[in-house]
Amino acid sequence: METVAHSASASTHERLRTFIEHRRVQGAIIALILINAVLLGLETWPAAMAVAGGLIVHLDRAILAVFVVEIGLRLFLYRRAFWRDPWSVFDFVVVAIALMPATGQFAVLRALRVLRVLRLLTMVPSMRRVVGALLGAVPGLLSIGLVLLIVYYVFAVIATNLFAADYPQWFGHLGRSFYTLFQIMTLESWSMGIARPVMENFPYAWAFFVPFILVATFTMLNLFIAIIVNAMQSFTEKEQQETVAAVEQAREHIEADLHAEVRAMREDIRELRTLLSQQPAANEK
Amino acid sequence: METVAHSASASTHERLRTFIEHRRVQGAIIALILINAVLLGLETWPAAMAVAGGLIVHLDRAILAVFVVEIGLRLFLYRRAFWRDPWSVFDFVVVAIALMPATGQFAVLRALRVLRVLRLLTMVPSMRRVVGALLGAVPGLLSIGLVLLIVYYVFAVIATNLFAADYPQWFGHLGRSFYTLFQIMTLESWSMGIARPVMENFPYAWAFFVPFILVATFTMLNLFIAIIVNAMQSFTEKEQQETVAAVEQAREHIEADLHAEVRAMREDIRELRTLLSQQPAANEK
Amino acid sequence: METVAHSASASTHERLRTFIEHRRVQGAIIALILINAVLLGLETWPAAMAVAGGLIVHLDRAILAVFVVEIGLRLFLYRRAFWRDPWSVFDFVVVAIALMPATGQFAVLRALRVLRVLRLLTMVPSMRRVVGALLGAVPGLLSIGLVLLIVYYVFAVIATNLFAADYPQWFGHLGRSFYTLFQIMTLESWSMGIARPVMENFPYAWAFFVPFILVATFTMLNLFIAIIVNAMQSFTEKEQQETVAAVEQAREHIEADLHAEVRAMREDIRELRTLLSQQPAANEK
Amino acid sequence: METVAHSASASTHERLRTFIEHRRVQGAIIALILINAVLLGLETWPAAMAVAGGLIVHLDRAILAVFVVEIGLRLFLYRRAFWRDPWSVFDFVVVAIALMPATGQFAVLRALRVLRVLRLLTMVPSMRRVVGALLGAVPGLLSIGLVLLIVYYVFAVIATNLFAADYPQWFGHLGRSFYTLFQIMTLESWSMGIARPVMENFPYAWAFFVPFILVATFTMLNLFIAIIVNAMQSFTEKEQQETVAAVEQAREHIEADLHAEVRAMREDIRELRTLLSQQPAANEK
Repeated sequence: METVAHSASASTHERLRTFIEHRRVQGAIIALILINAVLLGLETWPAAMAVAGGLIVHLDRAILAVFVVEIGLRLFLYRRAFWRDPWSVFDFVVVAIALMPATGQFAVLRALRVLRVLRLLTMVPSMRRVVGALLGAVPGLLSIGLVLLIVYYVFAVIATNLFAADYPQWFGHLGRSFYTLFQIMTLESWSMGIARPVMENFPYAWAFFVPFILVATFTMLNLFIAIIVNAMQSFTEKEQQETVAAVEQAREHIEADLHAEVRAMREDIRELRTLLSQQPAANEK
Repeated sequence: METVAHSASASTHERLRTFIEHRRVQGAIIALILINAVLLGLETWPAAMAVAGGLIVHLDRAILAVFVVEIGLRLFLYRRAFWRDPWSVFDFVVVAIALMPATGQFAVLRALRVLRVLRLLTMVPSMRRVVGALLGAVPGLLSIGLVLLIVYYVFAVIATNLFAADYPQWFGHLGRSFYTLFQIMTLESWSMGIARPVMENFPYAWAFFVPFILVATFTMLNLFIAIIVNAMQSFTEKEQQETVAAVEQAREHIEADLHAEVRAMREDIRELRTLLSQQPAANEK
Repeated sequence: METVAHSASASTHERLRTFIEHRRVQGAIIALILINAVLLGLETWPAAMAVAGGLIVHLDRAILAVFVVEIGLRLFLYRRAFWRDPWSVFDFVVVAIALMPATGQFAVLRALRVLRVLRLLTMVPSMRRVVGALLGAVPGLLSIGLVLLIVYYVFAVIATNLFAADYPQWFGHLGRSFYTLFQIMTLESWSMGIARPVMENFPYAWAFFVPFILVATFTMLNLFIAIIVNAMQSFTEKEQQETVAAVEQAREHIEADLHAEVRAMREDIRELRTLLSQQPAANEK
Repeated sequence: METVAHSASASTHERLRTFIEHRRVQGAIIALILINAVLLGLETWPAAMAVAGGLIVHLDRAILAVFVVEIGLRLFLYRRAFWRDPWSVFDFVVVAIALMPATGQFAVLRALRVLRVLRLLTMVPSMRRVVGALLGAVPGLLSIGLVLLIVYYVFAVIATNLFAADYPQWFGHLGRSFYTLFQIMTLESWSMGIARPVMENFPYAWAFFVPFILVATFTMLNLFIAIIVNAMQSFTEKEQQETVAAVEQAREHIEADLHAEVRAMREDIRELRTLLSQQPAANEK
C-alpha cells in the first residue's frame, strides 16, 4: 500500500512540477505581475479609485492569492532548494510583505506592496540576466567599497566633532553627517548649500570639504573604472586564449603535415633500400 | 501605343530619379536647409522681423514649398521603398509638421517647424553616419533600460503612496513622481531641494532617496559601461580575427613551402631510384 | 663686398639662432614666465601692491620687454616658419595682448595679460605633449560635435519661440536660450531653477526639457566614449600588428630552418647519387 | 663579555621582531583599531558620553597607549627602515597627532584623532593593496594635473582682476577665486548661483565661465580617460606578450620536431650510403 501511495504522491509531485515549470504557466504569472503593476499604479490615482476602487482592490487581492498559491507550491515542491535560490527567496519576501498587516507603525508596508512588480526581474529570463550581470559586478567592488566606507567614517566623525554644535541640521550626529557627506559626494549644493555657510564660522572649512570631494570622487571613479576594466579584461582574455588556441592548432596541423610528408619520404627511402639490397642479389645472379 | 506610353513614362521616371539623386541637387537641398535654419533663427529676433519680416516669412514659405515638392517627388519615385527608409519617414514627418495648421490648441506646432533643420542630419552623409552610430548603440541598451524602467515604476508608485498628500507639487500623482525621480537621478537639488524638506515630515525618507540614487546611478553607469565595452569588444574581436587569419596564413605558407620542398626531395629520390633501377641493366650489360 | 656682407649676416643669423635655441636661454625664458606668473598673482593682492607696487609693475614691464625681444628675434629668424607653427602664433598673440592699450572699452585686456602664463604650456616640452594630446583628441570629435550643435540650435529656436515672452531672462533671445540650454546640459539647477518654474505656465514643458537632457547627455557621453575607444583602439591595433609581425617572423624562421635542413638533406642525396653514378664505373672495372 | 651581551641583545631583538610581526599580534592591533573606531564614534554621541563617558575616554587612552608602545617598538626594531616605509610614517603621524596638546589654537587636532582609524588601510593587507592601487594611478596624472593647475591659475587671476571689486565673497582674492573655480568645475550652482548674478553686472561674463567649464571638464575627463587607458593597456600588453610567447613556443616546437624528423631521415640516408658503399665490396667479391 505504502509504495503505491508513495508512487502516487511522487506522480502528483511530478505533475505539479511539470505544471509550475510549464512555459504557459510562467507566462501567465508574468502577465499577472504586469496586470498587478497596472492595478497598483491605478490605486495611486484617486479618480480611478472613485470609479472602480472596489474592483481594483478585489483584483489586486485575487492576484495576490494566486501568487501565494504559486510560492506555496514552489516551497512544497523544491523544499530546501527553494531557499538556496536567491531569486526564490526574493519572490517569497516581496509576497510576504503584502500579507503583513499594514496598520499603525507598519503603514509604510502598504507602500512596499509594489515591490511585487520587481518579480518581473526574477521571472523574465532576459531581465534576470541583466540583473545578474549588475549584481555580478558588485563583489569585485567590495574591497574598494570598504576603503570608501572607512574614509567616509573618518570624515563623518571629524565633521560631527567640528560642526555639530553650529550646524546641527547637517552634522548634528553621525547619521546626519553621513547623509550630508553622501550629498556632498553627489556634488549637490555642496558649496552654496553647505560649505560656504559653514565657512562663515570656520574660514578653513574648505580644507575639510575640498579634500573630501577629491578623495570621495576619485575613489568612486576608480570603483567605476574597476568595473569597466574587469568587463574588458574578461573578454580580451577570452580572445587571447582563442588566439593562442589557434596558434596551437596551427602548430599541430603543421606537425601532422610534416609527419605525413616525412613518413612518405622515409617510405620512399625504405623502398630505395629494398631495391638496393636486392641489387647485390641481381649482381650475384 | 501602351508600350510607347509606358516606355516614355519609364524614361521620365528614370530622368526624375537621376535628377533627384544628383549630387548638385542634393547639395542645393542642403544649402536650402541651412538658409532655412538661419531664417528660422531670424524669426526669433524681433528687430530682424521688424525690418524684413515679410521677406523672411516669404522666403521661409518658398523653401518649404521646395521641400514639399522634393518629398512629393521622392514619394512618387520610390513609393513603398520610401516608407521603408526611416530617414525618409523622418523627412516626411518634419515637413508635414510645417504644413499643419498651427492655430488654437496646435500653436505649439509653429515652434516645431524648426525640426526641419534636423534634415541636415539625414541629408549630409557624414552626419547620417554619426546619428546612425548613436542610434546603433540603443538596441544593446534596451534590456538594461527596461530594468531601469521597472525600478523607476516601483519607486514612483512608492513615492506617490507615501508623499502625495504632503508634497503634491513633487509627488502628487505618478507622472509628477516620475518627473521628480528623473530630477533626482540627475542629482539636481535632490537633497537640499527635495529630500531634506521631505525628511522634515518623514525622518526616514533618506531610506527611500539614498537607495534610489544608488540603484538608479549604478544602473545608468552600467548602461554607459555597456556602450563602451560593446564598442571595444567589436574592434578587439576584429583584431583577434585578423591575428588568427595571419596565423592561418602563416600555417598555409609554411605547409605550401614544406610540400614544395618535400616534392623536390621526393623527385630527387625518384631520380635516384631510376638511376638505381637502370644499374642492374648496366651490370647486366 | 656683397658676398662678405651676406656671409657675415648669415653668420650673425646662425649665431642668433644658436643663442635662442640654447637650452639655457629656453630655461631662462621659462624662469621668467614663472616669475611673471607670481608677479601677476601679487598684483591682485592689494597689501602687496601697497608695499611694493612700483617694483612689481616695473619688474612686470621688464619681463614683458624681454618677451617682446624674444618673440621679435624669433620672428626675424624663422620668418614664414614662425607663422606656420601654431605654438609660435600663440606666443605672439599672448604677448601682443599685453602691448595693447588697456583703456576705456578695452580695460578687459588688462585682465588677459595673465594669459602670458600659458606660455608655460608652449615652452615646457612635457606640457606641450600633454596639451598636444588633449588637442589631438579634438578633430575626432568634430562630426559628433556638429551633430550636438545642430541639436542645440533646434532646441534653442524652439525654446525662444515658446518661452521668450514669459521668461525673457532665460530664453529672451537665441543667445540666452543657448546659454540656458548649456546650463541645463550641465544639469545645474535644470529642474528646480528652470524647468519647474516654466512648468507653472506650460504644464507640458517637461516634454521639452527631459528629451533635451536625454539627447544632449547621451550625445556628450558618446563624445566621451569616442575618445576612450579611439585611445584604446590605437594601442590594441599596435599590439595586434606586433603579434602579426611575431607570427610572420616565426614563419620566416621556420621556413629558413626548413630550407637549411632540406638543403643539407638534398646534399646528402646528391652525394648518394654521385656515389651511385660512380658504382657502375666500379662495376665496369 | 661584550659578545655575550651583544648576542643576548640580538636575541631579544629577534624575539621582539617575531612578536611584533606575529599574525596574532597584527590581528590584535587591527581589532584595537576597530574598537577605537567605535569608541571615537561613541564620543560624538552625547547620550553615550553621559552614560559611559569616563569609561570611553579611559579605553580610548588605553588603546592609544598600546599604539604608542607598538609604534615605539617598530621604531626601535627597524630604525631607518621604519622611515623609508611610507605606511610606517603614516602610522607614526596619525598616532603623533593624538599625543599633541589639543588646546587653544590646536583644538582642531582633537577632531583629527579619528585619523587613527585610517590605520586600518595600512594594517589590513587587502586594503593596503587597494590604497596602493589608487595611489599608483596618481603619478601618471601629474603632468596633466599640472596643466590643469596652470589653467586654474590663469583663470583665477583673470577672475580676481575682473570681479574682485563687485563680488568679494566669490572672487575677493586669489584664494577665494580658486575655491569658486573649483566649485564651478564641480558644476555646483555655477550658473544660477555664480554666473547669472555676475552677468547682471558683466553681460559678457559667460565668455569667461563657459570656456572655463569646457576646458576644466575636458581636461578632467582626459585625466580620467588616462587612468582607464593605462589600466587597460597594462593588461592587453601582458596578453599580447603571452600570445607572442605562445607563437615563439610553437615555432620552437615545430623546429625541434623538424630537426628530429630530419635527423631520422638523414640517419636513413646515411644507412643507405653505408649499404651502397658496401655494395662495390660485395660486387668485388
